[in-house]
Amino acid sequence: MAASSDVKLLGSRLSPFVNRVQIALNLKSVDHEFILENLQAKSELLLKSNPIHKKVPVLIHNHKSICESLVIVQYIDEAFPDGPSILPSNPFDRSTARFWAAYIDDKWFPVFRMLADVKQDEESRAAVLEKMTEGLVPLEDVFLKFSNGKGFFGGDTLGYIDIVLGCYLRGINATEIHLGRKILDETKIPALAEWARRFISHEAVKGAFPETEEFLNLFKTMESAKAAAAESEASN
Amino acid sequence: MAASSDVKLLGSRLSPFVNRVQIALNLKSVDHEFILENLQAKSELLLKSNPIHKKVPVLIHNHKSICESLVIVQYIDEAFPDGPSILPSNPFDRSTARFWAAYIDDKWFPVFRMLADVKQDEESRAAVLEKMTEGLVPLEDVFLKFSNGKGFFGGDTLGYIDIVLGCYLRGINATEIHLGRKILDETKIPALAEWARRFISHEAVKGAFPETEEFLNLFKTMESAKAAAAESEASN
Repeated sequence: MAASSDVKLLGSRLSPFVNRVQIALNLKSVDHEFILENLQAKSELLLKSNPIHKKVPVLIHNHKSICESLVIVQYIDEAFPDGPSILPSNPFDRSTARFWAAYIDDKWFPVFRMLADVKQDEESRAAVLEKMTEGLVPLEDVFLKFSNGKGFFGGDTLGYIDIVLGCYLRGINATEIHLGRKILDETKIPALAEWARRFISHEAVKGAFPETEEFLNLFKTMESAKAAAAESEASN
Repeated sequence: MAASSDVKLLGSRLSPFVNRVQIALNLKSVDHEFILENLQAKSELLLKSNPIHKKVPVLIHNHKSICESLVIVQYIDEAFPDGPSILPSNPFDRSTARFWAAYIDDKWFPVFRMLADVKQDEESRAAVLEKMTEGLVPLEDVFLKFSNGKGFFGGDTLGYIDIVLGCYLRGINATEIHLGRKILDETKIPALAEWARRFISHEAVKGAFPETEEFLNLFKTMESAKAAAAESEASN
């Protein structure tokens, strides 16, 4: 296990991208210091470590900074080869894992983000949630192929796709509770719904995830802020 | 060298993402069959090989499809280990290469794309070109560090960042001629301007790139189409 002084993670509590890195570090049993960033008043360390994007997560390993969560997870896999492999070993399987990681972040996640901007009525929100479920359907097939009858995309243990998709699960779960509708709909994506339950209770995930309540509070704060803004606009 | 029947590349002439894959294949001396796609009437093979994005490039190796140019280039590096390495061997250098590849595609290239949508007057275009140059300034520093006094980001030969950025050079060059302004401005990014000349005449790049004239013709066609659309709109 690496000494905690060697590895620092600059992060925030509710970022799925930070959770992604924490899960990868836990999986590889890399001891690390978590440095909580205040994103309203970013630290000198964050601005110096990630001058291009000025965002968390940033991993600092032996005084060198690595930024962008997908880059960091691949780095962790390569810099700490002793733990379980995150990416598969076969070049074709590696390319498949990278392809779906890009799909999740670049095609599927933008739909999730739309929830914040869409009109706050039942119908508009339901359309986005429906699209989120539909966007997971191809991943149901990928899971069935990749997991090979085992519990995870990575087989017996968490792999790259598990971590990349799994980091959104707490946010998905909180959204389901908040809006009273299923996203991980068992009638459409039964294997993924099962996988999600296994993922959440995996040893490497426990503790990395914020509580559902924290998300629910965030949603309420965001909605109050929106309502206040709308009211102030209407009164002008 | 792999037999040409093993490796097929589905592509189009003017796509920088296709050129990216061709350059990687050339660098690794992988013999391959180039299958020209008509993107106005996509082939069954393309739709079957890339059902998610339905886009070129697609690499087909031993009857298996690999999609998305960055994923393909990394696949080529791993599946054909005999040629020169595209990614560095050290985990930190690999993460740096991946970070800048993502920067080039996700932050810098969208500015280039804005040229097609921006108002077609001198001032609007100049602002975009200026932003393109500014976006390359951090890469000037990366080049000076990575190349270590040698010719390429990859040192003596082309590496990942060379290929990812270099694939845009023909389009940049044609844009400079078409609009009569420098993007690779020697007063601001002298090392990159020099690097671009070396890249274009590298053995692995020759033949992969379309001629500048093909781009210029494309620009003219696009502008005529825009002008026709604007005229038709104005007459309604």
